[in-house]
Amino acid sequence: MASAGIGGRVEGVHAVRAALAAGRVTVLYVERTRRDSEGLAAEARRSGAEVELVDAVGPLAATESPQGLVAKARPIPFASLDEVLTRRPRGPEPALLVLDHLEDPRNAGAIARSAWAAGMTGMVVPRRRAAPLSALAFKAAAGALEHLPVASVSSVADTVRRASGSGVWTVGLDPGADRTLFGLDLLSEPVALFVGAEGRGLGRLVRQRLDEMVSIPMTAGAAGLNASVAAALACFEVLRVRRAEARG
Amino acid sequence: MASAGIGGRVEGVHAVRAALAAGRVTVLYVERTRRDSEGLAAEARRSGAEVELVDAVGPLAATESPQGLVAKARPIPFASLDEVLTRRPRGPEPALLVLDHLEDPRNAGAIARSAWAAGMTGMVVPRRRAAPLSALAFKAAAGALEHLPVASVSSVADTVRRASGSGVWTVGLDPGADRTLFGLDLLSEPVALFVGAEGRGLGRLVRQRLDEMVSIPMTAGAAGLNASVAAALACFEVLRVRRAEARG
Repeated sequence: MASAGIGGRVEGVHAVRAALAAGRVTVLYVERTRRDSEGLAAEARRSGAEVELVDAVGPLAATESPQGLVAKARPIPFASLDEVLTRRPRGPEPALLVLDHLEDPRNAGAIARSAWAAGMTGMVVPRRRAAPLSALAFKAAAGALEHLPVASVSSVADTVRRASGSGVWTVGLDPGADRTLFGLDLLSEPVALFVGAEGRGLGRLVRQRLDEMVSIPMTAGAAGLNASVAAALACFEVLRVRRAEARG
Repeated sequence: MASAGIGGRVEGVHAVRAALAAGRVTVLYVERTRRDSEGLAAEARRSGAEVELVDAVGPLAATESPQGLVAKARPIPFASLDEVLTRRPRGPEPALLVLDHLEDPRNAGAIARSAWAAGMTGMVVPRRRAAPLSALAFKAAAGALEHLPVASVSSVADTVRRASGSGVWTVGLDPGADRTLFGLDLLSEPVALFVGAEGRGLGRLVRQRLDEMVSIPMTAGAAGLNASVAAALACFEVLRVRRAEARG
């Protein structure tokens, strides 16, 4: 259930190791034939999980290639929107990624991975008409969803309003925008980046309410970018602008 | 057959439309139930292809979700390494992406898409122990492989040597490198970027021969980036540095 949080089921090496490290795995199913099955089993037992050695995890798995590892885990609770919008004492200025109805869980997970690597402070996903942060998303996130706070909202358009109300700049990615993402000064201030689904883009109401729309510079004739690549470029632009600012 | 070129089989909307536009589709299988099946069939016939309306393309498809479209096409021949290393009259300085044994065809295709969007002039892939540029790669490339020249080589290490011999800087991505990718001046000159497989990284001999190793700046504790995201960041850094240079 969405309201209970995310990550109740985790599969694949990186994602399972990260969930074990977070101490939230309750049962780990390991394929006997994995070379490191004994080490993983010991690690899991130390963290308080039950371990079941099985011949094949395939029938238990939700993803296509669970790499011989499936874990049941205590879900990670969602953060509230207020929590991710608020500057924490001695923390960096909020830098959020807001996903506007992306449909591919693998993309959503890959985006979380890039966002965490780039130092973003949180992610916001809509409750409905969106990729669930499923086992597939956790696998693509390679551990990032254990760390990156995620808020779940009923309306992305309302999130724009609430972000503005909290003093957070709202910036949307739009291939048609004149202004470029590269070197955008306001990324050093509290900011929320809005990314839409490939093809469909950001919702109409969301676009109307945003402070800024920016595009990623591209060669003429190119077919555009995968949503997860566009999001990664945006996140690393935040990192770049903030580091340049810090250097003075 | 690898030597005959790539793209003999194309699936999915974007990839098939791009192959049709390139005029190289010989037979197009279209599912009757696609809303645009008649328009696509007409488009295909105009471009000289045979069209077969079928109930389901699944049994013919190599990818998981061919979106009701499978095409047989005349393969795109590989470029030679010399061709991609050489500056074309009035063309941009060569900017190549060299994939060192990436194993996931979807990643290889996604990388081609980003490389084309960023204005890279070519891609180099090893013939063996590498992701084939299969139907899955073409689908992820969303048309980019119709445009981006691709050379196939027997040795990535030898490619470093030949690039250097042609006056092309060789730069490898390595998470452990001290020097950062961001703002690397030499990207405005002829350059080849080497990207290794996730986890395994670049081959030993390749690393020894490269002019420069650079890393992508990242938050402490992050698990690293997906190879296709790392490659995209590198390609767009080339675009950024070259545009900054052009502005003076």
